[in-house]
Amino acid sequence: MARPLRVTIWNEYVHELTSDVVRGLYPEGMHAVLAAALARLLGGAVRVRIATLNQPDHGLTFEVLAETDVLTWWGHAAHERVEDEIVDRVQRRVLEGMGLVVLHSAHNSKIFRRLMGTTCMLRWREAAERERVWIVDPGHPISAGIADEFFEIEHSEMYGEHFDIPQPDELFAISWFEGGEVFRSGCTWRRGKGKVVYFSPGHESFPIYHHPSVQQVIANAVMWAAPSGGLYLGQGRNIPQPLSPIAARHVVDESLHRAK
Amino acid sequence: MARPLRVTIWNEYVHELTSDVVRGLYPEGMHAVLAAALARLLGGAVRVRIATLNQPDHGLTFEVLAETDVLTWWGHAAHERVEDEIVDRVQRRVLEGMGLVVLHSAHNSKIFRRLMGTTCMLRWREAAERERVWIVDPGHPISAGIADEFFEIEHSEMYGEHFDIPQPDELFAISWFEGGEVFRSGCTWRRGKGKVVYFSPGHESFPIYHHPSVQQVIANAVMWAAPSGGLYLGQGRNIPQPLSPIAARHVVDESLHRAK
Amino acid sequence: MARPLRVTIWNEYVHELTSDVVRGLYPEGMHAVLAAALARLLGGAVRVRIATLNQPDHGLTFEVLAETDVLTWWGHAAHERVEDEIVDRVQRRVLEGMGLVVLHSAHNSKIFRRLMGTTCMLRWREAAERERVWIVDPGHPISAGIADEFFEIEHSEMYGEHFDIPQPDELFAISWFEGGEVFRSGCTWRRGKGKVVYFSPGHESFPIYHHPSVQQVIANAVMWAAPSGGLYLGQGRNIPQPLSPIAARHVVDESLHRAK
Amino acid sequence: MARPLRVTIWNEYVHELTSDVVRGLYPEGMHAVLAAALARLLGGAVRVRIATLNQPDHGLTFEVLAETDVLTWWGHAAHERVEDEIVDRVQRRVLEGMGLVVLHSAHNSKIFRRLMGTTCMLRWREAAERERVWIVDPGHPISAGIADEFFEIEHSEMYGEHFDIPQPDELFAISWFEGGEVFRSGCTWRRGKGKVVYFSPGHESFPIYHHPSVQQVIANAVMWAAPSGGLYLGQGRNIPQPLSPIAARHVVDESLHRAK
Repeated sequence: MARPLRVTIWNEYVHELTSDVVRGLYPEGMHAVLAAALARLLGGAVRVRIATLNQPDHGLTFEVLAETDVLTWWGHAAHERVEDEIVDRVQRRVLEGMGLVVLHSAHNSKIFRRLMGTTCMLRWREAAERERVWIVDPGHPISAGIADEFFEIEHSEMYGEHFDIPQPDELFAISWFEGGEVFRSGCTWRRGKGKVVYFSPGHESFPIYHHPSVQQVIANAVMWAAPSGGLYLGQGRNIPQPLSPIAARHVVDESLHRAK
Repeated sequence: MARPLRVTIWNEYVHELTSDVVRGLYPEGMHAVLAAALARLLGGAVRVRIATLNQPDHGLTFEVLAETDVLTWWGHAAHERVEDEIVDRVQRRVLEGMGLVVLHSAHNSKIFRRLMGTTCMLRWREAAERERVWIVDPGHPISAGIADEFFEIEHSEMYGEHFDIPQPDELFAISWFEGGEVFRSGCTWRRGKGKVVYFSPGHESFPIYHHPSVQQVIANAVMWAAPSGGLYLGQGRNIPQPLSPIAARHVVDESLHRAK
Repeated sequence: MARPLRVTIWNEYVHELTSDVVRGLYPEGMHAVLAAALARLLGGAVRVRIATLNQPDHGLTFEVLAETDVLTWWGHAAHERVEDEIVDRVQRRVLEGMGLVVLHSAHNSKIFRRLMGTTCMLRWREAAERERVWIVDPGHPISAGIADEFFEIEHSEMYGEHFDIPQPDELFAISWFEGGEVFRSGCTWRRGKGKVVYFSPGHESFPIYHHPSVQQVIANAVMWAAPSGGLYLGQGRNIPQPLSPIAARHVVDESLHRAK
Repeated sequence: MARPLRVTIWNEYVHELTSDVVRGLYPEGMHAVLAAALARLLGGAVRVRIATLNQPDHGLTFEVLAETDVLTWWGHAAHERVEDEIVDRVQRRVLEGMGLVVLHSAHNSKIFRRLMGTTCMLRWREAAERERVWIVDPGHPISAGIADEFFEIEHSEMYGEHFDIPQPDELFAISWFEGGEVFRSGCTWRRGKGKVVYFSPGHESFPIYHHPSVQQVIANAVMWAAPSGGLYLGQGRNIPQPLSPIAARHVVDESLHRAK
């Protein structure tokens, strides 16, 4: 693709404004750290903009979404404050082909639950324990650039199974937690024409988004989720004329015809 | 399973009351034909009840759903008249393990779109053309009892690709249409603990639900979608105590703790 | 199914004859413990026979395989002593519909590698560490009867990722190991008409096959892998006569026709 | 990727030398038509070489394979003349990450059957009938650039279901045949680190490889199957030292230790 991939980083941007711990780790917001990571790792291949909850339309106007190829989503404290109308709009764009990269606590966001059809709930524990992220699909484009079979996060929030999601189309990472759990931490799905990634490492009160391997995976996920072009076919099409001849035509009750 | 599988057949039951053609084919409703087919093919292995749109709670009270192992769903003219609250309730039960068999024009039902996360739209044409249903997964339990590589429906409504669904976990049938289209006509997915089947053959203005192979597939689908038992884990579980010892505990900002 | 499921338990039966430790744990062979577990858990629903490496045809004659609905396979020290001709025979039966339950070190068996197309290799460590088996698909029939979100094995051999298998059609268990690894320990695939299960817990020098939950999973896997009936279609079929009329026939070079 | 993708087009190159019809359509071999199509559609993004059956090592020496990122494979009359040793070598490279694009009658090649684990057999008829290739995954990169919901091939060989393959990881095309069959004509799988594509349109005695949409799909498939980098982990790794501390060490029978 000649032109840069247009990435919008969405952050609810609440914890950074209300907690000293979080502000200490992410003084300009987690979105700023992610934006800098994408710029450093992907350079001119992407053009990044930011959107946050408190902006009009949560920063996701029709215009912004129309100009977004891949959207990343971080939310936690304010999932319910995201307007259903905006969720509809984002879902529609995903089905049309926009990529969506869902991060950490956004497992419980409206948009992720909408696309999955399940509760997306899980076990969790915030005990600053060690997380070891194992690459279980080393040939997946999202795994590229990870130099070893795993990488470690010194202090992490535990997310554990059972995670109530549809089985991923592709599972690229599974996490091990010191306290005893496992978690499908790197997953992909397709919905309509859009590609969806869920990647769990990342937390407001630990410096996980500063971790080089976490940044690498997110950058890879953004590139992988890029739209592939082609027709959008998510609408009903009544095709009265057959493409090939039909031998005999039965009497059909025309009164039943209606638009779908 | 010693006790019979409790099956609820849901039918919006509109066309049969408003169209002479449909009433001629299904004088007591499509649900009655389906119920008789299940009784004939499955005998004492199932106990069938009926629910329809115009009953209180569309016939799907908490009590009825709590006593339903597998729900079949047929709708077309009145998808929008199904209350969102009932859709929530059915979705919840599917995630808890209730099977759901979605029939024909119910591809566009609220409950199916809710579970899929996509538009579920498709091409269609009502020209009474021939449909040939090919079994593409002859080892699947839902394909059992189909004696040949395919079966034919003399007069069918065409449903064609692209069908905007997540790729099925299992694809057991693909239909060929005389007028030139193909369609993924037999699909399964898992959502939460529930098994979901979509099977497209079946139409109000053709006698398709009287077709022996169509009945066989639906009976197989009902049995396949039976709950498998086990825990329901679709809720968040905060687990403060680790299962295995954690070496060092980092200071965590307790002000961020909250129920998910 | 009215008649009992015919199960053949295959064991290479080498370690039990050469190691005091193994004989102490499994005096009559691991197969005997598995057979007793199936009898206890499944009763008259199954009829079990045993086959071992040193029998003629490794105990897997055409007659035995023709009368086997589900085959379980345990091997470790003698994978290369299994004759290719017998592997061909077992593969053929799987494609025709026989279930196959592959246990522990049989990840490296000829038959499993044949069906997967990959090396099926993995990390491992024999340090008697704790394994915690997490159920990640609580609605799967193979997970039925496991009372909690996980079960534990006090002393286990570590098997870890990356495990070089095609992504499972269904992943029902992931194991956590005390020493720091994770493993996709419960997987299913379909090959031809046959259902294939891989379940890793189980080891010759630990009493893992005496563990109630391990036995429950294996019993469930055997039942799940039962053949579903229907046609076997794994052979080429030349169909000179079309099912539907072809408008115009082009000249075809008959000299190119040949059986496939 | 800065450097061009290194593509090797493998053709058994038998029919072109023995049949006037085939030579008339592909005077310099089907490989020459495919090479020209890749050059035209992909330009400097690829560097193409040719390999054929009658070359030493079938043109697939260790050196050639080591310098191949994506291999395309066409065979029909001489599958059995491909040496097992070369099949082993190609399989190994696929597991290490080389892409493989399997064309038309190569469904029955040794390498494809090796990677699938099934017979890969199908129905077929050579009656020069119309084939209509429906795109069922319009968001897949391999579907990019196809301008409509389908494309047509005026005279095609019918390949029909049941096609004995493992369910594709992704199904991007289904074909409709005038004579009445359907076929999963565009499929992808992952094996080890390699990406595998099967695309059925293409036949020696019809000019199908001159068809613009067929060429587009093959070019897309080649690009999609490019290796993604990262570690190759298809070998056993004994890891005696745990990554995390193990509380108690049980006595293990060291006599059982052995390399896998």
